[in-house]
Amino acid sequence: MQATEPRIPASQLQRFIAAAMEGLGLPGADAAVVAELMTEAEVQGSDGHGAIRLAPYARRIKAGGINLHPNIHIVKEKAAMAVLDGDNGMGHLVMQRAAQIAIDKAKNAGIAWVGARLSNHAGPASLYARMPLAQDMIGMYYAVGNANHLPPWGGLDMLLSTNPIAVAVPAGQEAPIVLDMATTVAAYGKVKAKAQRGEQMPVGWMIDRQGNPLTDPRRSEEGFLMPIGGYKGYGLALIVGILAGTLNGAAMGSETIDFNKDDVSVTNTGQAIVAIDPDAFGDIDEFKARVDKLVREMRGSARMPGVDRIWLPGEQSHAKRIANERDGLALSSALLAQLDTVARDLGIARLQDT
Amino acid sequence: MQATEPRIPASQLQRFIAAAMEGLGLPGADAAVVAELMTEAEVQGSDGHGAIRLAPYARRIKAGGINLHPNIHIVKEKAAMAVLDGDNGMGHLVMQRAAQIAIDKAKNAGIAWVGARLSNHAGPASLYARMPLAQDMIGMYYAVGNANHLPPWGGLDMLLSTNPIAVAVPAGQEAPIVLDMATTVAAYGKVKAKAQRGEQMPVGWMIDRQGNPLTDPRRSEEGFLMPIGGYKGYGLALIVGILAGTLNGAAMGSETIDFNKDDVSVTNTGQAIVAIDPDAFGDIDEFKARVDKLVREMRGSARMPGVDRIWLPGEQSHAKRIANERDGLALSSALLAQLDTVARDLGIARLQDT
Repeated sequence: MQATEPRIPASQLQRFIAAAMEGLGLPGADAAVVAELMTEAEVQGSDGHGAIRLAPYARRIKAGGINLHPNIHIVKEKAAMAVLDGDNGMGHLVMQRAAQIAIDKAKNAGIAWVGARLSNHAGPASLYARMPLAQDMIGMYYAVGNANHLPPWGGLDMLLSTNPIAVAVPAGQEAPIVLDMATTVAAYGKVKAKAQRGEQMPVGWMIDRQGNPLTDPRRSEEGFLMPIGGYKGYGLALIVGILAGTLNGAAMGSETIDFNKDDVSVTNTGQAIVAIDPDAFGDIDEFKARVDKLVREMRGSARMPGVDRIWLPGEQSHAKRIANERDGLALSSALLAQLDTVARDLGIARLQDT
Repeated sequence: MQATEPRIPASQLQRFIAAAMEGLGLPGADAAVVAELMTEAEVQGSDGHGAIRLAPYARRIKAGGINLHPNIHIVKEKAAMAVLDGDNGMGHLVMQRAAQIAIDKAKNAGIAWVGARLSNHAGPASLYARMPLAQDMIGMYYAVGNANHLPPWGGLDMLLSTNPIAVAVPAGQEAPIVLDMATTVAAYGKVKAKAQRGEQMPVGWMIDRQGNPLTDPRRSEEGFLMPIGGYKGYGLALIVGILAGTLNGAAMGSETIDFNKDDVSVTNTGQAIVAIDPDAFGDIDEFKARVDKLVREMRGSARMPGVDRIWLPGEQSHAKRIANERDGLALSSALLAQLDTVARDLGIARLQDT
């Protein structure tokens, strides 16, 4: 973030992304959904999954790697589940639909699980896990990442992605608890950011092919991300991939297409969303009051020396959301330049003039 | 394990535990279920959750901390979920019932989630996650641990337990994939084992109240277990506790009763089991073939120097199960002595004479 750049209202970014998506050939209604969700990612501080993704999405769409008129449809369903075929459409469209189906089914069944295949990258996991919150439901989201950076524990072949988990829990007076985590110690985007800034990585983020710590981010191609808890994180990444990918007939393991290097092949991305209605388990207001109590207990814990505050999962993102909605978005000059290039390529107005 | 001790057939241990449970006052049918599951834990190599638990269970039962004639019943249900009231019965009875309900509902709804409150310690998480495997279903299990060893990230107050996650996935020719993990780097039982053997702990298992590594297991009371991935593991432990505890109206956070120190208070233990029917998502045989392919990919990965073999989650436990079923159980002399004490107290035959 450059302090000298003026902050941009979220609504302005949203209009710009919608115009870009329409310029790329998405129908207006679909462009609006993608723009809303990409802007929402930016607003909640998931800047690795927000506006920065516009350029790579545009590149893939122009290469023919995305179906602009997908027939997103249910291929299997029962009372508490469905499998969606995303027909290689934008992942945001597929997973918004999946979330809506999960919420609708959970109202009747108490819980519902909707998986997707033939989807694509859909932005931050928490974007979808948060959707059931509006109905006072718990949301869970699993995804297969779109590039493999993780070998099985003890191995050298990168067969797994940073397959993320997100869970959102409604609270009463407090902000919802929103956990959104890769199953690796650091997400790959953080490695790229360290390289850009010329900084070293802490020990524990990556190892080299001999199993030794790798701390120079410019050498990241020579090593692997470390899973959280060692073999445990490997197990989690594998299980998340099975639940989000294999179960839905989506890509997993060696089938994963690296979307950084291949703009054309169908990624067959797999994701899954779960909606749980706490009101089916008890009384929703009692549940929310119990969550509030837990939040306050955690926050009120005595602290280690040097720790100013105990955070709940999602609490920092919540604070960013409030600030960004109030003050507008602080986009870096590098990102603004990238968006200008997209605008020029598409012959649409620049963000600043939108 | 003492090499000099003769191996004991699993069926013999099971008869002994059943006799002990009957001696403690459990009805015969319930004693048989508890004995079967505790023995199964031992057979699969979960020795921290098997026969070693008989003495503390006996202590709690004799202190009146367990309801020997519980009315385990559904208090809320919908097509894809139920909440069980365990009525403070043995956790094994509650969670076996929960698993059966989840499997039955998943047959119709495609997936089902059954939570429990007023349950008790039920043994290893994988015991229940594995139950849906017999129906070619995926099983997931979440639990609130029965003693808090983990503060929120940056905190000093132990408000969280090592809340475990287990997931079991059916395969075709290969053994099922079974992940069973605490959300801390090491389970507390491993710390106790290091202390018994007079060994130091690796850096990363525990920290002291200043946040520095704690490696002397005899000083474990002065510090805390480390969550996997730092703040991520704290988030996971919190979320697992909410899903297994708070959602069901069970104990969580400061409400958790430390069952090592208190034999009388109702623990109000919360657990949850999820059954997912892959046949609802596609074809079960295709699913199992895809899991086999994944297993072989992981196992076939090139390996780091010094790594003899790549393991899948649950594969070592699977090997132990086969060996223990074939050769009998190798129980340590310390454990055998503990079981002799239980037998003497209850006036039943010793394990060796059962």
